[in-house]
Amino acid sequence: MKGMELTQDVIEKLEGYKLPQSLGFGRELAPIMYRADYKDETWHMGQIIPFSELRINPAATSVQFGQQCFEGMKAYNWANSSPHLFRPEFNFSRFKRSASRLCMPPVTPEIFADALSKLTMALENFIPNQSGQSLYLRPTLLGLDHTFAVQSSDTYCFILLASPSDAYFTKSIKVMIEREDSRAANGGTGSVKVGGNYASSLRATKRCNEAGFDQPLWLDAATHHNIEELSGMNFMALINGELHTPELSDTILAGGTRSSLLQIAHRMGIKTVERVMPITGLLKDIERGVCTEIFACGTAAIICPIQEIGEEKGAKMPLLDVNKMSLTFKESLLDIQEGHGDDPFGWTISADDPDQLYSRFLCE
Amino acid sequence: MKGMELTQDVIEKLEGYKLPQSLGFGRELAPIMYRADYKDETWHMGQIIPFSELRINPAATSVQFGQQCFEGMKAYNWANSSPHLFRPEFNFSRFKRSASRLCMPPVTPEIFADALSKLTMALENFIPNQSGQSLYLRPTLLGLDHTFAVQSSDTYCFILLASPSDAYFTKSIKVMIEREDSRAANGGTGSVKVGGNYASSLRATKRCNEAGFDQPLWLDAATHHNIEELSGMNFMALINGELHTPELSDTILAGGTRSSLLQIAHRMGIKTVERVMPITGLLKDIERGVCTEIFACGTAAIICPIQEIGEEKGAKMPLLDVNKMSLTFKESLLDIQEGHGDDPFGWTISADDPDQLYSRFLCE
Repeated sequence: MKGMELTQDVIEKLEGYKLPQSLGFGRELAPIMYRADYKDETWHMGQIIPFSELRINPAATSVQFGQQCFEGMKAYNWANSSPHLFRPEFNFSRFKRSASRLCMPPVTPEIFADALSKLTMALENFIPNQSGQSLYLRPTLLGLDHTFAVQSSDTYCFILLASPSDAYFTKSIKVMIEREDSRAANGGTGSVKVGGNYASSLRATKRCNEAGFDQPLWLDAATHHNIEELSGMNFMALINGELHTPELSDTILAGGTRSSLLQIAHRMGIKTVERVMPITGLLKDIERGVCTEIFACGTAAIICPIQEIGEEKGAKMPLLDVNKMSLTFKESLLDIQEGHGDDPFGWTISADDPDQLYSRFLCE
Repeated sequence: MKGMELTQDVIEKLEGYKLPQSLGFGRELAPIMYRADYKDETWHMGQIIPFSELRINPAATSVQFGQQCFEGMKAYNWANSSPHLFRPEFNFSRFKRSASRLCMPPVTPEIFADALSKLTMALENFIPNQSGQSLYLRPTLLGLDHTFAVQSSDTYCFILLASPSDAYFTKSIKVMIEREDSRAANGGTGSVKVGGNYASSLRATKRCNEAGFDQPLWLDAATHHNIEELSGMNFMALINGELHTPELSDTILAGGTRSSLLQIAHRMGIKTVERVMPITGLLKDIERGVCTEIFACGTAAIICPIQEIGEEKGAKMPLLDVNKMSLTFKESLLDIQEGHGDDPFGWTISADDPDQLYSRFLCE
């Protein structure tokens, strides 16, 4: 890659690294990372450093008050080409919104481009190349100032972590309609990617696992009537041959995969419908055979077919089709992401040129 | 203190420490802390160590997904006696609830007692002794496992930090009725003390500061009609000579100061009313002169008189009385906390005996 100089300690880390036989998702951490810091009211250019534990004040705002945000994205191993990123401007844009929601200074386009390009290229030889595998990337922004009074930090660090990974889920899942807990409040942080949204989801996940399901399906907190999303994935349903998904609100995270699938479906001539989706209506549609297939989608999982939807203590409904249209969608998306087919939307971009990445982020 | 042995590095830290002239609230960090770890499905007894930066995996569940919780409590410098804690069993109980809500193993009574007692006693000579000052204590529980998949950690650390502190607010404040953002969702984490609740409050605080107020007053997320609390403080109003406060729900943090003031007021012969409190009703009551005084209360601030309540862009209403009954309440509470008066409720307890503390936690 042009202009990349790695420090000796980074080179040694890379030379000593070997991909493990079994990867899993997000379990294996790359031996290097990227870090940039914000202080004196400005972002300072970062660099690749060996992966290490973070040294942070235990009273820092990110540790105590959840003043942090993150992103999830992937770099794909392309045959006969440099690794490619998928819609990185989508993540950059959301990362900025998340930061602003929690009163943090968004990282600059220069730094985001520098980090993504340099880390991906330095790890080029460690991106697994089976379909569905990738280098999972985790941009993270953390408040560093220590204070026990509830207030924003004046200093921050941006770190980019990487994990050579398999797909998140590899088989179809069972989802439980979550009738008690909620993921996000109106006027809260549900539409941005911050830790608190995920912390609050853990109990429902545990409860649903105990009841024999894989993931909870969240309803809106205000009425518990309308479908929102899964923890970390958006929800989609095929109803009368149309692709339906809950319309975005300030309690739903706008997923990149959601956005991409809506565009892919539209291009395939499938009508897409973004609307308020009452859970009662969906269950009736499944019962009547009008809704034939449902699935979840997200960067980590790509697409996760749902074989059954049910209540914690009550009816469980199997789906007529499992991984039928959703498999088509997944293959279409993966074809683009992994460089096997055309990229009619211009979504992919080589990681090897930070300037080109940078100009994409400027348009956001 | 009986049985306390400090390591050489801790002794050196203490010998080299001097209280700064100006403390502020939660700004000064004590030179030592306490740490215990959970692994192999059990808590292991902790110890006092020098204060230092935390070394944590940047992909840890506490850093990425907000799997953490904390408490705020105080040790008071008592004349001619060892330092005293105030209702530590209240904090222990809530700390357990917070941990459980986020699927974390609650710290044991033994460790909580050991930490509180040892750290307070080791810092005995650094607890400021003016009224309103204290050693602010911050128990914190953090998930340590690294994973990019959303799941609970299997390992945790419990740390107890301390900060010699002034009172949180020292003068009366102006509160802005927050009409847009929310603090917590029904079925969310609002009734437990976790970082996400505070992160989501930062934007409203910033906006209210820009509009000339000190703190936002949260309404319920579902309807935005009913008063909930301030960020980190509960809300109280004197209406027709009665003490009114929003009844607890799963979106309001049950404050120790709230609980204590209700009991103190009751003992003073003042009727206490816990109820749903619509904001429109409160504003009418203020306008008609029926509600004469409002205030916020919490461990950090003790009591914070409110001189004005208003809209971001709109009417601002001054209060008839500022710091009148609330001053009486504050003095009554401080008299107990600082050992100046009787303790009819048995709320205070010397920090010097971990066994005695432990037995209090067993009853919870």
